[in-house]
Amino acid sequence: MNTDHITVRRNVSLRTVLRYLRALGELPDYTDKFMVVDRRERYLGILRLRRLVTGRPELSVSEAMESDFQPIPASVADEEVARRFSDQDLISAPVVDDEGRLVGRITVDDVVDVIREESEQTLMNLAGMDEDEDMFAPVLVSSRRRALWLGINLVTALLASWVIGLFEDTIQRVVALAVLMPIVASMGGIAGSQTLTLAIRGIALGQLSQQNARWLVLKELAVGAINGVLWAVVVGGVAWLWFASTTIGLLIATALIINLVCAALSGALLPLSLERLGIDPALAGSVLLTTVTDVVGFMAFLGLATLFLT
Amino acid sequence: MNTDHITVRRNVSLRTVLRYLRALGELPDYTDKFMVVDRRERYLGILRLRRLVTGRPELSVSEAMESDFQPIPASVADEEVARRFSDQDLISAPVVDDEGRLVGRITVDDVVDVIREESEQTLMNLAGMDEDEDMFAPVLVSSRRRALWLGINLVTALLASWVIGLFEDTIQRVVALAVLMPIVASMGGIAGSQTLTLAIRGIALGQLSQQNARWLVLKELAVGAINGVLWAVVVGGVAWLWFASTTIGLLIATALIINLVCAALSGALLPLSLERLGIDPALAGSVLLTTVTDVVGFMAFLGLATLFLT
Repeated sequence: MNTDHITVRRNVSLRTVLRYLRALGELPDYTDKFMVVDRRERYLGILRLRRLVTGRPELSVSEAMESDFQPIPASVADEEVARRFSDQDLISAPVVDDEGRLVGRITVDDVVDVIREESEQTLMNLAGMDEDEDMFAPVLVSSRRRALWLGINLVTALLASWVIGLFEDTIQRVVALAVLMPIVASMGGIAGSQTLTLAIRGIALGQLSQQNARWLVLKELAVGAINGVLWAVVVGGVAWLWFASTTIGLLIATALIINLVCAALSGALLPLSLERLGIDPALAGSVLLTTVTDVVGFMAFLGLATLFLT
Repeated sequence: MNTDHITVRRNVSLRTVLRYLRALGELPDYTDKFMVVDRRERYLGILRLRRLVTGRPELSVSEAMESDFQPIPASVADEEVARRFSDQDLISAPVVDDEGRLVGRITVDDVVDVIREESEQTLMNLAGMDEDEDMFAPVLVSSRRRALWLGINLVTALLASWVIGLFEDTIQRVVALAVLMPIVASMGGIAGSQTLTLAIRGIALGQLSQQNARWLVLKELAVGAINGVLWAVVVGGVAWLWFASTTIGLLIATALIINLVCAALSGALLPLSLERLGIDPALAGSVLLTTVTDVVGFMAFLGLATLFLT
């Protein structure tokens, strides 16, 4: 917000305003409207610069102003302001305090920055980096920031290893399982991250809320099931040919379907739950999702193998 | 681009322009400047609306106009236009053809859309989705688009499995390797995706080019080496305690350093090479990076284990 706006009074003529502006000699950047206020600085409406130059000079400001232009309360969040600028194609807008007094204006350049930062932030957070982590940070600063993220992800990886460790005996007997198990985890991770990205973007753009969440979950479950079955047939076939074992083929196919369905479910539900808890879904979502797809993937494949192969 | 701009001639007075605008009664949205052209519609400069209202009415347009305002050639890319609007805080800018004739103007609302789409696209492409894939697409449309990405990633996963398959004998003898190997691949993937995101963002924002590429690669190598050593100590320690084997601890530590350094190298070099080849780094980068970190991770860990454990 800045405070370099020009205010005018309701009872003067456009000619007077023009004379005043000529005396001023210079207008602040992004002046597309003037703020109409009363003697106590309370906001009454706006007078567009466009209207000033096209209106008859003898018109009064009260005749040429727009009193239905809603000012922005100072308490509104950046994202909400950006959305309103975007929806209403604004260049500048008046900002008022709780008592309706004009305190300043917001201009489109600030909004462009907010929009840029918003998407940037999602992108950086998904990789566990800070918005202001940039290429030009010193090596040690970059290292420290990223080390934290690697540490958090190590917990996920150790959890996955622990799950695999539960089935050491089975793997020793059928080593093909060790060869194939990353496929189940990886396909689940990819499918889940697609749903996750879509949900995070949907929340950021205001397209996804608790109202249509149920519908999204059902849709993603359907997509997960369709792709689960499709790739289960392909991967099952490859495994069957590779290890000449129908059982292994059927096991990996089943595990893949289970993991893709769970991936869809958690890809849609995690961001919604995190958002409700006030945690940034872009930052925490990808780690939690990987934990789910790794654990479910290894557990389903190795668990089923233990039941049917040994 | 739109064509609803207002043009004025150089030799008239500001008073005449104002009278013309009053006769017009209405100005197009985002009119913050008028385009000054000659009789053959060739661009000469701009007259700011701000200048029009603050200037003395008897001034001529040629006295009040800015002839050094550079118009935008019609051939310039969207991203370049967005950058210029952002750098120069523009609301509108004239567009000219090859012969310098005014063909229209670009307004800030188009630019906001470009900025929004640009970051959106990176985000969606990193998850293998199309910019216009949205939450509201029918199940079958969504499934088909995402199936393609899952298929491409399956090739990566199968390659990783093939690498693991080369070491079946070693895994059968030391099954702890199967338990620990996903850690090496996963930590490499995380570290690499951080560098990749940074590089993709750097290219998109115009901060990263072939000129400072060498510097970025060296910096990322340093970050990779520091975090490689740090997490090698932690993971090596965990593995040593878990499996009561110094050799396994040392092996996974070494493999982790190798993979984190390769991840940094490919995370920085892949987007730069893809960009040079005219391929979108956000779309192809993440798959290629995962291939590198999986193959190098499994190869380093299992290869070293085969040398030193059997």
